[in-house]
Amino acid sequence: MGNETICALATAPGGALGIIRVSGPRAFDAVSAICAIRCDAVGANTTHYARIVDHDAASQHQTVIDETLVTVFRAPHSYTGEDSVEISCHGSRYILNKVLELLVQHGCRMANPGEYTMRAYLNGKLDLSQAEAVADLIASTNQATHQMAMSQLRGGISTELSRLREQLLKLTSLLELELDFSDHEDLEFADRSELLSVAKNIDIHITRLAKSFETGQAIKQGIPVAIVGKTNVGKSTLLNRLLKDDRAIVSDIHGTTRDTIEDTIDINGITFRFIDTAGIRQTTDTIEQIGIDRTYAAIAKARIVIWMVDEEPSQEELAKMESLSENKQLIIARNKIDKAESKPFTLANIPLIEISAKHNQNIDQLEQAIYQAADIPVLSDTDIVVTNARHHDALVRAQGHLHRVIEGMGAKMVNGQWSMVNESLSSDLLSEDLRLTLDTLSEITGGQITPNEVLGNIFKNFCVGK
Amino acid sequence: MGNETICALATAPGGALGIIRVSGPRAFDAVSAICAIRCDAVGANTTHYARIVDHDAASQHQTVIDETLVTVFRAPHSYTGEDSVEISCHGSRYILNKVLELLVQHGCRMANPGEYTMRAYLNGKLDLSQAEAVADLIASTNQATHQMAMSQLRGGISTELSRLREQLLKLTSLLELELDFSDHEDLEFADRSELLSVAKNIDIHITRLAKSFETGQAIKQGIPVAIVGKTNVGKSTLLNRLLKDDRAIVSDIHGTTRDTIEDTIDINGITFRFIDTAGIRQTTDTIEQIGIDRTYAAIAKARIVIWMVDEEPSQEELAKMESLSENKQLIIARNKIDKAESKPFTLANIPLIEISAKHNQNIDQLEQAIYQAADIPVLSDTDIVVTNARHHDALVRAQGHLHRVIEGMGAKMVNGQWSMVNESLSSDLLSEDLRLTLDTLSEITGGQITPNEVLGNIFKNFCVGK
Repeated sequence: MGNETICALATAPGGALGIIRVSGPRAFDAVSAICAIRCDAVGANTTHYARIVDHDAASQHQTVIDETLVTVFRAPHSYTGEDSVEISCHGSRYILNKVLELLVQHGCRMANPGEYTMRAYLNGKLDLSQAEAVADLIASTNQATHQMAMSQLRGGISTELSRLREQLLKLTSLLELELDFSDHEDLEFADRSELLSVAKNIDIHITRLAKSFETGQAIKQGIPVAIVGKTNVGKSTLLNRLLKDDRAIVSDIHGTTRDTIEDTIDINGITFRFIDTAGIRQTTDTIEQIGIDRTYAAIAKARIVIWMVDEEPSQEELAKMESLSENKQLIIARNKIDKAESKPFTLANIPLIEISAKHNQNIDQLEQAIYQAADIPVLSDTDIVVTNARHHDALVRAQGHLHRVIEGMGAKMVNGQWSMVNESLSSDLLSEDLRLTLDTLSEITGGQITPNEVLGNIFKNFCVGK
Repeated sequence: MGNETICALATAPGGALGIIRVSGPRAFDAVSAICAIRCDAVGANTTHYARIVDHDAASQHQTVIDETLVTVFRAPHSYTGEDSVEISCHGSRYILNKVLELLVQHGCRMANPGEYTMRAYLNGKLDLSQAEAVADLIASTNQATHQMAMSQLRGGISTELSRLREQLLKLTSLLELELDFSDHEDLEFADRSELLSVAKNIDIHITRLAKSFETGQAIKQGIPVAIVGKTNVGKSTLLNRLLKDDRAIVSDIHGTTRDTIEDTIDINGITFRFIDTAGIRQTTDTIEQIGIDRTYAAIAKARIVIWMVDEEPSQEELAKMESLSENKQLIIARNKIDKAESKPFTLANIPLIEISAKHNQNIDQLEQAIYQAADIPVLSDTDIVVTNARHHDALVRAQGHLHRVIEGMGAKMVNGQWSMVNESLSSDLLSEDLRLTLDTLSEITGGQITPNEVLGNIFKNFCVGK
């Protein structure tokens, strides 16, 4: 694979500029074949004006395809660790296709999704969890997803795992020490209690990491919010109010439509997704029964339920809504407070926000209540959050192996605590599970992963050109 | 304007990479304020790894926004002619917005559409017709539009106009010579015939340029083609056949959907647009009357009409179709030649292609007939084609002034030829029209254009970041 030279468009089509990346042993030759820059002769990390020319051998006819800037990177000081060239072209579909065609004619092949980053990993520029963070970083749409990806890219998880690895190696060496002195029965017991304490400490760390996946997923996918309430209570006005304010700010900056993140808002850097907004928008002529079914379905999918009312709910209504939104965060929004006939009321256990969706009153307050309800810990740059399902899976499996180690020492999990109940197994049996724990954890950073199909699976969801 | 430092995203959002451009007197300071690269100290045209950092003054907290590559260009050796920096970021919407925000915080403002190229023009890096070619180049989708834009960018029109300018200046100096010797009556007549010959030569060139606009427009907008014929003759099968083959090739290369160029095909580098394809796709249950109205409308908009038949048309049908498609190029496609009952026939004046849309027979031949019918001259790299309405407008106005010069010399256009009919006007009257001809022509390359609103109009249709 590493012997092939790959090329791809690394930017989205349709802009003023389009960047074509070339990487591999023939990168310099291929680029030099289509322009006048001697890539092997110019300095590393230098940029050159270059006319890309299509030279027709048969007719000796030359067609200028584009006037570009060519930047040369020399192995190992490039993203992939290979000789690489970036060609900054005019963003015409025709030009970009033509330049890629010419590169393919001169010995390159089109890159697969994620292949640049896979090469960076294979060449030791990044570990596997960092490589995966690149895709997350590109996909990040708000502060929280950005921060999690950036922390992972900068080796956050890798550092945490290498600490766990050290502790696991310490366990291993304690066990080996024991094997050497296996005839001293007293010594064994002394070591076992230290062993157990180290193992339990590792278990706590793995539990914390595995648990952070829940937060990571919530942040990555956006927290589902349902807006429910009777017809004409103002649901669609509120939805538009929440969506519009946010949208205006975003579109100011980059001037593009945000169709892919339709019906989501960011509050304090966290994305919230509104569920079944089509239902909310079509409420006027919905048959009551459909409305109720929809409400149930929306609540079932939500993590936060905003119940809009314009008068005090009856005890019966309140009880029903509390039972429907069990295990959810329920917020009551009393709308239409601007109206003369609107009467305040109080509630014991449920957050109550008084708003006027129409007149934009207290919408900030409602947003902060939504954010509070999400109960997402404020992440600092040093917090490690697991966002990747593959990592979570490896952590859970590693923990399984570790639990066998701890159980092998004679402990048993009772009410979330380890208690000594049995005799300990012999050291060589424990060693095997300990080795499995280590191997499984190192899958995350790629230490134990080599088969191509596994790597292919990891990188196939990347964009082309990265 | 030139004192402001501008920034913009120069690539489309959504790719692996996003390029942010910064240009202007504070470009180096602004970029150095958000990363550790001392832009003023590093070499021109060099690329540097740079961590973009958001430094919160109040909390002294630093957040890493992205790991980027920063390329530094030094005035006047940059696209705009100003100090410039390009920042190659990960293509996350959040990151790109954040970097732009930071640049704005450090004294940049968001660039207007086309502002980079406008600055390149104002700083003498390009003339106005070349600047306009940049937008055409970016928009080019096939060989022909690309070639026209590239020829214009490389100064094709500018060179042609400077030749015309030389000839007009020659005319002017001949007139001035005449003024100096205005008491010699004999001399005047001798000069006038030379003057007239030079003027007529210029007129021929301007006519050719102005006329090329028709070709330019056809190529730029795609040539409209109507497929007409009775229900069940195979129109939609043919349409899909024509579209599908082409689409497969294109999507192979860049792997993106081509929703913007739906229902067009490229034949020999020229784009053909199929008209009212929705109508063709819905033929099965269309009431006959609607079908006929639609057919008329499609033919009216077309330049090429493909009349599909599966049996020999009657003399009446033939006469009707010939009258409907007067001034259009009519092609008859006899479909279903694979069927046993299909009977060949011949026609005197109309190209007849025998096809099987279903079995993909002779579709190539039909495509070549379509291409022939378009009657687009094969352009070489040196051909000048006017594609810009502003240029065409200036050429037509310049020609008006030139005609007044020629008429002032006593000539009159009769059957497309100039004939001497009157006495010549005096040199000073001719000079004025000659000056107007020169000024109007130089509008094209920008010589006479300074008002900001005119420039603003020219650049407003550019993409941002170019």
